Amino acid sequence: MIEPVGNQYVVARPVYSSNGFAEEHKRKERRHKTVLDHLKLCCRCSSKKAKKILLSFLPIASWLPGYRLKEWLLSDIVSGISTGLVAVLQGLAFALLVNIPPAYGLYAAFFPAIVYFFFGTSKHISVGPFPVLSMMVGAAVMRLAPDGPDGSPNNGTDDTLTQKRITAAASVTFLAGIIQLAFGLLRIGIVVVYLSESLISAFTTAAALHVVVSQLKFMLQLTVPAHSDPFSFFKVLESIFTQIQKTNIADLVTSLIILVIVFIFKEINQRFKSKLPVPIPIELIVTVIAAGVSYGCDFEKRFGVAVIGTMEKGFQTPTAPDAQVFQDAIGDGFSIAIVGFVVAFSVASVYSLKYDYAIDGSQELIAFGLGNIVAGAFRGFAGSTALSRSAVQESTGGKTQIAGILSSVVVLIVILAIGFLLQPLQKSVLAALALGNLKGMLMQFAEIGRLWKKDKYDCLIWIMTFIFAIVLGLGLGLAASVAFELLTIVFRTQFPKCTTLANIGRSNIYKNRKDYSDMYEPEGVKIFRCPAPIYFANIGFFKHKLIEAIGFSPLRILRKRNKALKKIRKLQKQGLLQVTPKGFICTVDGIKDSDDEELDNNQIEQLDLPIDTSDLPFQIDWNADLPLNIVVPKISLHSLILDFSAVSFLDVSSMRGLKTILKEFSRIQVDVYIVGTDDEFIDKLAQCQFFDDEVKDSMFFLTIHDAILHIMMKKDYSASKFNQEKEPKFDFTINTNGGLRNRDYQSS
Amino acid sequence: MIEPVGNQYVVARPVYSSNGFAEEHKRKERRHKTVLDHLKLCCRCSSKKAKKILLSFLPIASWLPGYRLKEWLLSDIVSGISTGLVAVLQGLAFALLVNIPPAYGLYAAFFPAIVYFFFGTSKHISVGPFPVLSMMVGAAVMRLAPDGPDGSPNNGTDDTLTQKRITAAASVTFLAGIIQLAFGLLRIGIVVVYLSESLISAFTTAAALHVVVSQLKFMLQLTVPAHSDPFSFFKVLESIFTQIQKTNIADLVTSLIILVIVFIFKEINQRFKSKLPVPIPIELIVTVIAAGVSYGCDFEKRFGVAVIGTMEKGFQTPTAPDAQVFQDAIGDGFSIAIVGFVVAFSVASVYSLKYDYAIDGSQELIAFGLGNIVAGAFRGFAGSTALSRSAVQESTGGKTQIAGILSSVVVLIVILAIGFLLQPLQKSVLAALALGNLKGMLMQFAEIGRLWKKDKYDCLIWIMTFIFAIVLGLGLGLAASVAFELLTIVFRTQFPKCTTLANIGRSNIYKNRKDYSDMYEPEGVKIFRCPAPIYFANIGFFKHKLIEAIGFSPLRILRKRNKALKKIRKLQKQGLLQVTPKGFICTVDGIKDSDDEELDNNQIEQLDLPIDTSDLPFQIDWNADLPLNIVVPKISLHSLILDFSAVSFLDVSSMRGLKTILKEFSRIQVDVYIVGTDDEFIDKLAQCQFFDDEVKDSMFFLTIHDAILHIMMKKDYSASKFNQEKEPKFDFTINTNGGLRNRDYQSS
Repeated sequence: MIEPVGNQYVVARPVYSSNGFAEEHKRKERRHKTVLDHLKLCCRCSSKKAKKILLSFLPIASWLPGYRLKEWLLSDIVSGISTGLVAVLQGLAFALLVNIPPAYGLYAAFFPAIVYFFFGTSKHISVGPFPVLSMMVGAAVMRLAPDGPDGSPNNGTDDTLTQKRITAAASVTFLAGIIQLAFGLLRIGIVVVYLSESLISAFTTAAALHVVVSQLKFMLQLTVPAHSDPFSFFKVLESIFTQIQKTNIADLVTSLIILVIVFIFKEINQRFKSKLPVPIPIELIVTVIAAGVSYGCDFEKRFGVAVIGTMEKGFQTPTAPDAQVFQDAIGDGFSIAIVGFVVAFSVASVYSLKYDYAIDGSQELIAFGLGNIVAGAFRGFAGSTALSRSAVQESTGGKTQIAGILSSVVVLIVILAIGFLLQPLQKSVLAALALGNLKGMLMQFAEIGRLWKKDKYDCLIWIMTFIFAIVLGLGLGLAASVAFELLTIVFRTQFPKCTTLANIGRSNIYKNRKDYSDMYEPEGVKIFRCPAPIYFANIGFFKHKLIEAIGFSPLRILRKRNKALKKIRKLQKQGLLQVTPKGFICTVDGIKDSDDEELDNNQIEQLDLPIDTSDLPFQIDWNADLPLNIVVPKISLHSLILDFSAVSFLDVSSMRGLKTILKEFSRIQVDVYIVGTDDEFIDKLAQCQFFDDEVKDSMFFLTIHDAILHIMMKKDYSASKFNQEKEPKFDFTINTNGGLRNRDYQSS
Repeated sequence: MIEPVGNQYVVARPVYSSNGFAEEHKRKERRHKTVLDHLKLCCRCSSKKAKKILLSFLPIASWLPGYRLKEWLLSDIVSGISTGLVAVLQGLAFALLVNIPPAYGLYAAFFPAIVYFFFGTSKHISVGPFPVLSMMVGAAVMRLAPDGPDGSPNNGTDDTLTQKRITAAASVTFLAGIIQLAFGLLRIGIVVVYLSESLISAFTTAAALHVVVSQLKFMLQLTVPAHSDPFSFFKVLESIFTQIQKTNIADLVTSLIILVIVFIFKEINQRFKSKLPVPIPIELIVTVIAAGVSYGCDFEKRFGVAVIGTMEKGFQTPTAPDAQVFQDAIGDGFSIAIVGFVVAFSVASVYSLKYDYAIDGSQELIAFGLGNIVAGAFRGFAGSTALSRSAVQESTGGKTQIAGILSSVVVLIVILAIGFLLQPLQKSVLAALALGNLKGMLMQFAEIGRLWKKDKYDCLIWIMTFIFAIVLGLGLGLAASVAFELLTIVFRTQFPKCTTLANIGRSNIYKNRKDYSDMYEPEGVKIFRCPAPIYFANIGFFKHKLIEAIGFSPLRILRKRNKALKKIRKLQKQGLLQVTPKGFICTVDGIKDSDDEELDNNQIEQLDLPIDTSDLPFQIDWNADLPLNIVVPKISLHSLILDFSAVSFLDVSSMRGLKTILKEFSRIQVDVYIVGTDDEFIDKLAQCQFFDDEVKDSMFFLTIHDAILHIMMKKDYSASKFNQEKEPKFDFTINTNGGLRNRDYQSS
């Protein structure tokens, strides 16, 4: 039992190497699961498991039977109606982003919500159009069905083109739905973890900017080129500024007024959140007023503003998606599928955490996938969740997806009955309403400063994601951003801050020698710490830092020694060296400097081999002076401790590199100890045939202190043992003026 | 001084928290270099540094003055001539891969070698055409200047198309050169570290397969579609098999014979390497014979075989690259630039290591960049180094790049004078020669098995790189492979094997509790180890594993306690609870179960706040039974130790996540200690405002054992202190049949 002795750390135990410890304490042989075992476990089937999985595909079967009619229904009705009204307006507004007639936005608001009611696991999100996603669908649509080559205006007048766009939007949506469904069935909802907060923040900010730019044409009533390709952000801006004098003043004024009103009331809603029973439905109010005024004063004829125009009552027949679109827009499909899911999932997570229930990423993917497939079939466009709308659903008291289905009933009523009331509404009003939702996203620019202070890499992720998303467009930008973000993980570990440690405080604590002045470094011992995993991209850096820390390259020393040995052998063969019981005598003045002697390939390879002195009748002390002009750098290092406690893995490249380094050290008689690793780490190395005659698994010690104590004991021991050794050890000295001197035998 | 006491580890020192230790041993305040400092240091200029940098741009100025004419010149001449002959044949053969007339391959063999002589830093590589690279240029060429829509044959007969292809190849080469030069000037030769051995092995294997497939058409003399796009590998194969009956038998037989001869002699060269003075120049011999036979028997007319045909003597006028190609082939340019450099650099590294001299990655990039620019201007195509040719240069005794320049003199002679001798040579012979060089690369398939045994991730990299390179083509495939490879670094750390540790051997050693049977776990203490960095992609996993290890979610406990507290407050307000000096009495039978009571948003948020009992006249012991039907899960955990010794970094997302976790634990009175971190780690957290009233920097301890001792002492202390506490602590019990019982005061 461990008993604290006051505030004292008192330990007395044997020094342990990893092997020694495992042996003494009987480490169990555990069979680790192989890939096959994991697969088996994963694919094992039981009727219980099957039932659970089947049920998990239809979450409504779990929650609807437990619905508390009396307590929840009223809240859900209130919430559903409020959310439904918002959904109608947002549907109309976001359809403009898709570059299709506003009426189709209602389908996008209706179908996914219905499907989500059955298949979704979140109780609080409102499923339907989301500006960024609509924008992405719009970009794909503009590429698939671009304006005429003369950039002719196309505000719903050219019927074939409009139809083509509607089909394109529906097909892309269908495609995204299939991708989401496939991801969901493969249970890889896990992809969301690759999107860090910084990335999402920067991406949505860039998306908001894209939305602003793409809505400018409706606010100013201008004709601009398609906003879809990489760099089109700037092209659209340029186009707008070159024709700014053509602005329709009536539209500009209307939209500015509405923007200001919406901003003010949203601010009021925010500030008096606690005092207001429900948020003021400012969007609904301005829409009603704007539609009324536009109708009353006949804005369309008088000022030439663009209005929503005829809204077809009821639904369109379902349509088969265009297979050609699948081929051309596979990239867009992927990014729409992923962005749509990620946004919805992150909003859903917030609520699930707040209300403490579980959501299932893969099931969400299935729900959104099916939703988009249905929406695509009925000529809607891709849905996710708008943050603002979900906030309405939750804050007005929505308890379950009953609110969601009620909101789609409201949309249904508009589609079937009262849609015509919205016909005189200006498109610029819708554009202004869409912009009103973006304030929060645009405010995220403040993140940059905050991140810069906290973490340079995260700041870099934000900035690069933003640049990629603006310049390359949202789809390609997202891919580039994720690639860059993953690269930062490599960056972070690629140049580890390797340090040399020293004993601080004369006990068992070792810290960076630069941080403390009162420290102790045992002679001839270096403690080197690498604070990151070692793999292909940083094994070179690790080696470089290690050589820098110890001050010499082991390979170079090895080669110099082998070269020197060749010369000594030559001298010996020529009979110029004589062994005496008390020393070693060089009987010549000097030999030809053959340091630059040409070596053939074979000889060069031999220089890297272990030093073999077994054929010589004496040992060589490499740190003493050698005879004549044989110069070998002296090294004082006899032991090197590598602190690998933070080296979480090695790959094949780094294993090979590390093994080479270890061999080089072993060949110049420097003992290397590796400390602080997991047992698994050693097991893994053994499994990879890392160990052999030169690199042994006895080099692992539990802690730095164990290794240090072991080294000290070994040195003491070898010093004392050395006195009893039979084999004489020789030490050369040369009298500079050609004479001979026989240095006394010295123990190291 | 540390003295080893036998083989004993004996330590007696105070228990240290990280702060305590730093204070006691006077940790120095070091100012870490900011990004600005690094930039300053990097951009600082001195005349010495300037001179060094200038000299490094022209390495010949350093090594040529030291050239040992007498010793080296002869070897260099022998080596240069041998290499030159190989270079001529490879140049001709690899030009077929580019889909341009063979003669242009000679330019590709000539110009880069000349430029490299002045700017290169490796002494042993032979610069010029490389099959994989030629193949990549060829793919770009076929995309830029495809066959006619009818797939009409184009064996150098259609002059305009051939000219177009030559220009395309030259332009792509020029572009790759510019990219390499730019990379070199920016000193980012570092990119090579991202290409691991597994990746290069798989990539070259796939490239070799591509080469085989693309040479089939010359060996069989068939017309096949362009081999350039993604999936074209299969298209070409399909096309070949559908028209296999059109094969030109003469070509097939010739190339098979030559293939067999070349393989046999290469095997002999390999096996009797030590006995042969120089390798048998089998390629040269078969070429001379084949050209002679073809000329003598007039194969061209008799069998309709394709021959090299007219070779223009001398050089072509330089040409400006096609700017349109730059736009269309920017991706190819990048991949050619990178692959060319990587291959050459890895070969050069081998020799530089063997002969112990330094090569400079960035300077190599500059040398290859300039070489490709010049080659592109003179209608050559991109060069790197062929492994086989470099092996010839080194094994025949080449000492410096003098051998390289001599080999280009040989090429020059062929270009200017004796090229016409090769005119009757069959193209299928060249194709067979090109294939003869691929055996080594194709043999790399054996890697898969070796890697599978060693490291699953590296094996996965190999397989995926191979698939990407085959299916997507070399350019796009390389990009996808690198992205995947970087992703594996994330994979490796994404699902760390988190473990629960226990004390083994009753001293200061803590190991995985599953590995040992004789272990000790202090009561109420969990030691949790995460063996990988924590960042956005695994913070969720970390949290999940932590909760799994301790057996409960701290947030859920906190919420239950806060709910219970609300009820107790309510009871107290209603006067149903009474405090007596000796206990706490509940004066009712039971209250309405309000566990499912509806809470509004505000109330739900309050559940996550710290538990505030300051307004209650008693403390609550959450692990005792609470009155009535108030149920709060009991937890025995009072201290949690997180072993972060292998957590090499945190990012902003994981910091936020970790802070949330720490707060939740602190709010349910579980002390969290973090041990094993660097001092820098704590500094970094402090800098990010990680610490506040609830999460304090006093939670860091040096080692697990320090933390354990601290916990034990604290528990002893609080237990003894508790006896003297004034405030009574209460414990509720309810008599199940409605009566009241007053439990005695108990100390925990």
